[in-house]
Amino acid sequence: MNIKEDWISFIEDLQNRICKALEESDGKAKFVEEQWQRTEGGGGKTRVIAKGNVFEKGGVNTSVVYGEVTEPMKKQLKIDGAKWFACGLSLVLHPVNPFVPTVHCNYRMFELYNEKEEVIDRWFGGGTDLTPYYLFEEDARHFHQTYKNVCDEFDVNFYSTFKKECDNYFVNSHRNNERRGIGGIFYDYQRPDEKHDMQFWVDFGKACGNAFIPSYIPIVEKRKNCSFTAENKYWQEIRRGRYVEFNLIHDRGTLFGLKTNGRTESILMSLPPTVRFEYNYQPLPGSEEEKLQQVCLEPKEWA
Amino acid sequence: MNIKEDWISFIEDLQNRICKALEESDGKAKFVEEQWQRTEGGGGKTRVIAKGNVFEKGGVNTSVVYGEVTEPMKKQLKIDGAKWFACGLSLVLHPVNPFVPTVHCNYRMFELYNEKEEVIDRWFGGGTDLTPYYLFEEDARHFHQTYKNVCDEFDVNFYSTFKKECDNYFVNSHRNNERRGIGGIFYDYQRPDEKHDMQFWVDFGKACGNAFIPSYIPIVEKRKNCSFTAENKYWQEIRRGRYVEFNLIHDRGTLFGLKTNGRTESILMSLPPTVRFEYNYQPLPGSEEEKLQQVCLEPKEWA
Repeated sequence: MNIKEDWISFIEDLQNRICKALEESDGKAKFVEEQWQRTEGGGGKTRVIAKGNVFEKGGVNTSVVYGEVTEPMKKQLKIDGAKWFACGLSLVLHPVNPFVPTVHCNYRMFELYNEKEEVIDRWFGGGTDLTPYYLFEEDARHFHQTYKNVCDEFDVNFYSTFKKECDNYFVNSHRNNERRGIGGIFYDYQRPDEKHDMQFWVDFGKACGNAFIPSYIPIVEKRKNCSFTAENKYWQEIRRGRYVEFNLIHDRGTLFGLKTNGRTESILMSLPPTVRFEYNYQPLPGSEEEKLQQVCLEPKEWA
Repeated sequence: MNIKEDWISFIEDLQNRICKALEESDGKAKFVEEQWQRTEGGGGKTRVIAKGNVFEKGGVNTSVVYGEVTEPMKKQLKIDGAKWFACGLSLVLHPVNPFVPTVHCNYRMFELYNEKEEVIDRWFGGGTDLTPYYLFEEDARHFHQTYKNVCDEFDVNFYSTFKKECDNYFVNSHRNNERRGIGGIFYDYQRPDEKHDMQFWVDFGKACGNAFIPSYIPIVEKRKNCSFTAENKYWQEIRRGRYVEFNLIHDRGTLFGLKTNGRTESILMSLPPTVRFEYNYQPLPGSEEEKLQQVCLEPKEWA
């Protein structure tokens, strides 16, 4: 089995395992799958969960797509070649309970070929980041520590580098550089070099992907039965507004997908179910809400 | 009084008149004003209404701003010069009742100067467009006819041209070119020429601005007391999601403002108060909801 086939089967198996773990945690809602095909080549499996006990809305999507390199790709992705291939998993979960954080992750492989269909470039990208509505420091530490442990097995510099990249990526620059949440790890354009061959990056992507369940599910289990008020829900919906702003104004993946004829419903699956936008909303000084906002404005070290 | 001063005083008076008419129609909520200054020059009056009987959220903003022409302006607005000036009114209203349409309008004047502060270019832009959640054909006709009447007084070709520009501007290209609503008029970069001098464009902008109250308030009055169900509200919130998508993904003004250090809260005042995003939501075939969606996919002639 070559690297590409190995990665595809990992991604599809990961989708199955993650969906199973989330359904068990939810206890009510089940994922509904839609398979889709791209006319230009390939397709995917969109799996959506909605109106559950725990998950108000979410999706765990995989895609295996390929095609000719188009002009918008050359421009926006700054790549050059004749054909391309990509395979990845992407998920977003929006819980009902404001004490359970929203989570996003994405792990993907990309290959580029010349006219003779020889591989001329390949790289990996990925990451997982957490968007809480209330800050539980022990949850933040657990989440970051899980990914630090994975990173440390591969390279002791990875965690600090990829944690910083994450903090620098999920930024609402139009909101005083407020972050979408408390981060996690984010890496992109990781290519084989003298130190790290292709198998290294496959193994790293797999280890990160496998860390999703132990990084997130324990937090869900700890918080999913906390009682909450209408005010907590209100605040969650205000913060979800920031999530919408980041995804639609700044997220490269979302914008690239929407502007290059990607599958809109799969791309916008990331948007929260109910959202509030209020003019100049400010949390009360000294409140738990303000504490969360503050940690988004000034990212901290958690591991 | 020169053209610039005349326009500024018109805009500020229009803001007062519109706010008064909307407060009367609402019967409960009052506009709250915030005055703001730009460090680079000028400022504005943001007037916000919220949680009213009729208007769930809205804003009627004016600004009189000026400064040096910056690199992002040269690139994104494709202008060249040393200094600029702009003055305009911009409003968005999101009603509580799903049978009352959302409305947006914007009327503005722009001037460009050389190093000696001589005017080297000036133009007008503006428009008003309606976003209903349910289609009442008589309301659509009333709204369009009001603007057609104004246009016809100035040039018999204006209405058809500016109606088409509006249909072509408020487009969610990522949603099969679905329009944000049923349109109205939209014009930009209107400069004095042999046929139309500067005063002509001032007068046209004033006439359009003055048409706002008679174009919109009668529709509000007719629909504001209609009873509605939770399902009607649900549909309104789904459609508000499309409004968010257009404003954050496609609207040139919003994106330019956010990326050039504009006042975020004034710019994002346009976003609806409560919004729903649901995976692959489809209205029932033959329903009133589908009828509305259809007219957004295929704009019609109303006047």
